[in-house]
Amino acid sequence: MNVTIFGTGNMGSAIARVITAGGNTVQSINSGDDTAVTGDIVVLAVPFGALDQIVATRADELAGKTVVDISNPLDFETFDSLVVPPDSSAAAQLAEKLPASSVLKAFNTTFAATLTSGKVGDNPTTVLIAGDDADAKEQLAQVVTAGGLKAIDAGSLRRARELEAFGFLQLTLASAEKISWTGGFAVIP
Amino acid sequence: MNVTIFGTGNMGSAIARVITAGGNTVQSINSGDDTAVTGDIVVLAVPFGALDQIVATRADELAGKTVVDISNPLDFETFDSLVVPPDSSAAAQLAEKLPASSVLKAFNTTFAATLTSGKVGDNPTTVLIAGDDADAKEQLAQVVTAGGLKAIDAGSLRRARELEAFGFLQLTLASAEKISWTGGFAVIP
Repeated sequence: MNVTIFGTGNMGSAIARVITAGGNTVQSINSGDDTAVTGDIVVLAVPFGALDQIVATRADELAGKTVVDISNPLDFETFDSLVVPPDSSAAAQLAEKLPASSVLKAFNTTFAATLTSGKVGDNPTTVLIAGDDADAKEQLAQVVTAGGLKAIDAGSLRRARELEAFGFLQLTLASAEKISWTGGFAVIP
Repeated sequence: MNVTIFGTGNMGSAIARVITAGGNTVQSINSGDDTAVTGDIVVLAVPFGALDQIVATRADELAGKTVVDISNPLDFETFDSLVVPPDSSAAAQLAEKLPASSVLKAFNTTFAATLTSGKVGDNPTTVLIAGDDADAKEQLAQVVTAGGLKAIDAGSLRRARELEAFGFLQLTLASAEKISWTGGFAVIP
């Protein structure tokens, strides 16, 4: 499987390592880079605010592909709310703008360090995946588990709202030093 | 500390065990029981739908007390949404109805079995507490930690929204058998 990752920050780099660890290949695309997308799965490892630019320039190219939104759409000035409507989610908004793509929510509940170490404390790191396309979720889950992590189907794309609340809460606890950036919420089966 | 617990179901019983394990005392009140409330902290271990009845009959008695909402206000027919407005929470609604009480959100992110065992997998069980009254949160945290669990201040009562999303997601995963009722989301420091 070839996976295109937009963004080469902490999260993009950590996700790239997971994918290559599983024997799959990664195409990394930086902002401003107009290289053609070659991946079957496309991970948008960019801040929420950068999604619209990708939609504006890449929507046609992303048609027919699985597109993974990893964003936590926080108001980072206040750390007190999300910037998406409370009855929606960043992923749902993205899916509306990319109707020809299979949009998934994933990786927003795992800090970069836990993707790299494969551990949240002593527990395996689990990637929670929400989306309406069961095949796309299964494909992403296979890439994640090949890379040594656990994956759980967290339900339809409507659950992106709860995943974003989960990510929001985890970020506020880490920024308040109640938990560390190597910890967070572990998923215990 | 004396803690009154409304409700003697799985959650009420598990919370009662935590409190007495810490050397504090419990007054249990069943639905329909009109015994006077003696606790300084009052835990409403009842389903979301039963809160209004308690408000209607007990609001004056709860004035000046710490009132803990543990509810997960799910639509249990669909398991696909909460029954509170998306920009609010069960706890925020309760706080509006009990303006003379200090309303906290807690215990909605811990399954009963993990309160009893003190473990989520191999990790200590952590009670996440949100509320606007720092003293009330600290008081509840002391009762919880005396009982052998961990407690974390999860922020203002606005974070009850995210705690309820967290509880919702955890319940959907358990009901779909993706996780067990003895597991769930562990908080790793």
